[in-house]
Amino acid sequence: MARMPTDPSPGPRPEGRLRVVCPDRPGIVAAVSGLLAGWGANVTDSQQHSTDPEGGTFFMRMAFRPDDPSTGARSRLADAFGREVADRFAVRWSLDWSDDPPRVAVLASKADHALLELLWRHGAGELAMDLRFVASNHDRLRPLVERFEVPYLHLPIGSDGRRAQEDRLRAHLEAERVDLVVLARYMQILSPDLCRAMEHRIVNIHHSFLPAFVGADPYRQAWERGVKVIGATAHYVTEVLDQGPIIAQDVTHVDHRSSARDLARQGREIERRVLVRAVEAHLAGAIVVHDGRTIVFRT
Amino acid sequence: MARMPTDPSPGPRPEGRLRVVCPDRPGIVAAVSGLLAGWGANVTDSQQHSTDPEGGTFFMRMAFRPDDPSTGARSRLADAFGREVADRFAVRWSLDWSDDPPRVAVLASKADHALLELLWRHGAGELAMDLRFVASNHDRLRPLVERFEVPYLHLPIGSDGRRAQEDRLRAHLEAERVDLVVLARYMQILSPDLCRAMEHRIVNIHHSFLPAFVGADPYRQAWERGVKVIGATAHYVTEVLDQGPIIAQDVTHVDHRSSARDLARQGREIERRVLVRAVEAHLAGAIVVHDGRTIVFRT
Amino acid sequence: MARMPTDPSPGPRPEGRLRVVCPDRPGIVAAVSGLLAGWGANVTDSQQHSTDPEGGTFFMRMAFRPDDPSTGARSRLADAFGREVADRFAVRWSLDWSDDPPRVAVLASKADHALLELLWRHGAGELAMDLRFVASNHDRLRPLVERFEVPYLHLPIGSDGRRAQEDRLRAHLEAERVDLVVLARYMQILSPDLCRAMEHRIVNIHHSFLPAFVGADPYRQAWERGVKVIGATAHYVTEVLDQGPIIAQDVTHVDHRSSARDLARQGREIERRVLVRAVEAHLAGAIVVHDGRTIVFRT
Amino acid sequence: MARMPTDPSPGPRPEGRLRVVCPDRPGIVAAVSGLLAGWGANVTDSQQHSTDPEGGTFFMRMAFRPDDPSTGARSRLADAFGREVADRFAVRWSLDWSDDPPRVAVLASKADHALLELLWRHGAGELAMDLRFVASNHDRLRPLVERFEVPYLHLPIGSDGRRAQEDRLRAHLEAERVDLVVLARYMQILSPDLCRAMEHRIVNIHHSFLPAFVGADPYRQAWERGVKVIGATAHYVTEVLDQGPIIAQDVTHVDHRSSARDLARQGREIERRVLVRAVEAHLAGAIVVHDGRTIVFRT
Repeated sequence: MARMPTDPSPGPRPEGRLRVVCPDRPGIVAAVSGLLAGWGANVTDSQQHSTDPEGGTFFMRMAFRPDDPSTGARSRLADAFGREVADRFAVRWSLDWSDDPPRVAVLASKADHALLELLWRHGAGELAMDLRFVASNHDRLRPLVERFEVPYLHLPIGSDGRRAQEDRLRAHLEAERVDLVVLARYMQILSPDLCRAMEHRIVNIHHSFLPAFVGADPYRQAWERGVKVIGATAHYVTEVLDQGPIIAQDVTHVDHRSSARDLARQGREIERRVLVRAVEAHLAGAIVVHDGRTIVFRT
Repeated sequence: MARMPTDPSPGPRPEGRLRVVCPDRPGIVAAVSGLLAGWGANVTDSQQHSTDPEGGTFFMRMAFRPDDPSTGARSRLADAFGREVADRFAVRWSLDWSDDPPRVAVLASKADHALLELLWRHGAGELAMDLRFVASNHDRLRPLVERFEVPYLHLPIGSDGRRAQEDRLRAHLEAERVDLVVLARYMQILSPDLCRAMEHRIVNIHHSFLPAFVGADPYRQAWERGVKVIGATAHYVTEVLDQGPIIAQDVTHVDHRSSARDLARQGREIERRVLVRAVEAHLAGAIVVHDGRTIVFRT
Repeated sequence: MARMPTDPSPGPRPEGRLRVVCPDRPGIVAAVSGLLAGWGANVTDSQQHSTDPEGGTFFMRMAFRPDDPSTGARSRLADAFGREVADRFAVRWSLDWSDDPPRVAVLASKADHALLELLWRHGAGELAMDLRFVASNHDRLRPLVERFEVPYLHLPIGSDGRRAQEDRLRAHLEAERVDLVVLARYMQILSPDLCRAMEHRIVNIHHSFLPAFVGADPYRQAWERGVKVIGATAHYVTEVLDQGPIIAQDVTHVDHRSSARDLARQGREIERRVLVRAVEAHLAGAIVVHDGRTIVFRT
Repeated sequence: MARMPTDPSPGPRPEGRLRVVCPDRPGIVAAVSGLLAGWGANVTDSQQHSTDPEGGTFFMRMAFRPDDPSTGARSRLADAFGREVADRFAVRWSLDWSDDPPRVAVLASKADHALLELLWRHGAGELAMDLRFVASNHDRLRPLVERFEVPYLHLPIGSDGRRAQEDRLRAHLEAERVDLVVLARYMQILSPDLCRAMEHRIVNIHHSFLPAFVGADPYRQAWERGVKVIGATAHYVTEVLDQGPIIAQDVTHVDHRSSARDLARQGREIERRVLVRAVEAHLAGAIVVHDGRTIVFRT
């Protein structure tokens, strides 16, 4: 059985997270905060971004704690928001609650480092997710995953081919109503269909500092170019390989003494860290994608 | 003649920056943003922090562009804020405008690195300050400062002693109505009187990672302890040496090969960077001091 | 049963690592490299450091691959070194071989992060050590350790007191002929006796940027001082708490939003990384301690 | 008149720096260090690198202080090295002396940040170079350069075209016997002829993390891709734009709040730092180029 999700925002009341995107014009902050105040919520964090205060696009994330956290009160808030704010400001919006964490599936292949980091952080209560299962096209990581009491699905690519394997995967994603898929060094390319169906809900870790070294064996490419810094990139998966919106990146210094194999080893440390950052931000409802770029609010 | 101050927020209208500190309770964000909306301002940035959503202290910085930037409109806003928000929420507040930058004096002694960084950034339009003068207890840096067309005051410590020298300095600070004093490796200790008179308006760069290596010759102390990382700390000056609220810190890795003199050289690069960060934050009205610690909003 | 040690220097021949410390004078490099060349070894890495080329202390680490790696050849080399170099240059020296890795014990208490990092790295073949056992004063980490197939010793502090517990620990260290003890957030203070007996062979991770925040609860101390950077320090343990020679340090930026508990969480990531760096350097025979400071050669 | 070059290695005797490249086989270190010992030199630093201990290429840098630093002794050493070591080990080698620093020209266009950093470091005695002149295709930076008492050449691109301008530049480089050209944001592309004539003696700073964002306006490219880290790269100039061997790189974290113009500003700080690192390494004779990659020994 999967470990129980852990609320990272301890305290007596759950936290709501409202994200809004709309054309920038005066009065939005007042309208949203006024609605929340009238409804009895205390705004605990508010961040905003505008591509241009004069006629650009406006993005906001407000976190708040409601006076009445009941289901009824929550749906009254959503109704009021739609009625009083969303139409008036042409807002695209979403509302999440800390006590209803995203349902997550992690996909891996043979490498264990990124997966272990996620499992350990989850076990330590640092990732507010409801981890439904880990799936892999190999059976190698089963013992590791089962030690953490997380269901493991072995989904090999059989004689019926890749597409059939992905269909089996999709069936599991749907059965478990998965909100977020994390690719923890999953070495299969997802079909354009699946990428579209789960747009901005699949996070991948690429083992280079994108856009440098797209494609296979980036550490070898980095070695050949003789770079002095290597990196890793977490991004949303789109149909075009390694071109999706970047969520997080980090790097480490290297020098001539490192072989391509050494770079891979040094890179693993960054991959783990960057993937965790990106997953944390997604789980906290802190990311908005706009024109192929991400706004990542701090949490 | 001092170079003209440069507005770092280009655009047709000046930017107002409102800082508020008050007991945390629901409705503050709505009250402030409602007032600004009613006054015709577009909120361009809003950040907040609370020591505890249940009964803690609440801090907010709102940046906004007014529809009517006239002096009359500005004072109507200040009046309205005092009347409608400040009393109701027991708010301590301040309001700055980007087209009225702080009046700044820089104090230095013999070392030029931190001073040059400030002068160059100012000349490049990266620091939104009205630099009134540079003063030093030595005459050595005069040519450097005058190259940048900034007035230079030589204030030696004469036979009448330190206190008399400080009195001359204070006369200049008052004559120029200086809002912010930056100590760019000024090697004199300011009197408790002056520290109190300009509380949270004197920024110093200390050449260690405080609280490690308080006092004299921190690079030698660092060398003796054999640390593997050295740092610099920018902080507000208080009566107690090197104990004021920390604004910014940064570090660099070092190893056994560095002598104390090498550490000093490597440290200069960090000192320059950290001091500029702290001054930028102060100039943008982004710092609030609370209980000996700083809240530094991002700008 | 403990996992087999892994040679991190793959290839047909083991690597020897010679460390020498002696008064600096001309001819040492030539004497050592001449001896190795005459013996048929290829020097694969050579690093040196001198506190002062004129009359200081000289430190060198030479890594080499012998033509004949037999036990007999190895002891002939050691004899020749003693006879031809050590006496002539008043050298203090040691010689390790990559196929005879140090025997290691890890001590932990309740926190699992530093321990898990060591176990995972060891399992991945990244740490060239012969891990004999993990011991703890609690039984909590047993399942984790046993999953990695490493022996787990529960050594509680019983009614016979701390000293008796340490005596039981020492008996195990001696029985397993342990060369290196790693304190992975072990919350007991070792006796001066044990510290002296294993001088420069006990590595501890302290959860602050030493010398700042010596002693208990450094993250709380850091929060109270309002620092903008937190760190971790790996050092050799000496009789004086947190005063031993520093091996490695690293830091991360934090801000006002972090509670003391958040700092502890952010700090765990640095603790893991710094401890691994220090253990790697020790295992590679890359550290020399001199006058309370470390020379850490690169590997 | 140009400021006098400053020896960064203070002490009674100059330092020699020997670089060797040869096929890796046993005995090289012994042969070189034996020769130096016989000649009365104390080796103060020795570093080496091998692409593969079994049949690869071997690189070494030895720094030493001679007993007799006279011109005659120096040429006897060079003769002996050629006779006793170079032929025997098929060595490609070079020998520099700290009291005969490289003659340097800096080229700039309109941006002043990288140039000012070099001028300030040089003035502070941190760059061991004999700075012959600064040349620019604009006259804008003349006052800045002349304040530092360095000759300024205005070499505009006239009606006779780019090639004629470069010919004038080359005449100056030859007249001043320039060893190293530093491009401090020089916005002209050098001819293949000049690149070949000064192979591995022209250092450029590119304002991106190569190989990402080759070509024009890399900060705009970075903004459009939505990267979370930006960087700068110092490299030797070759005929193919932005493809030369990388010497140094560094990065800084950015986020969605930065415009392309903000990225350019943040990037300037990295450009300055990275260019200085690369120039320092070149001046110290610490770089060897091999197969399009650099070995950069530490200094």
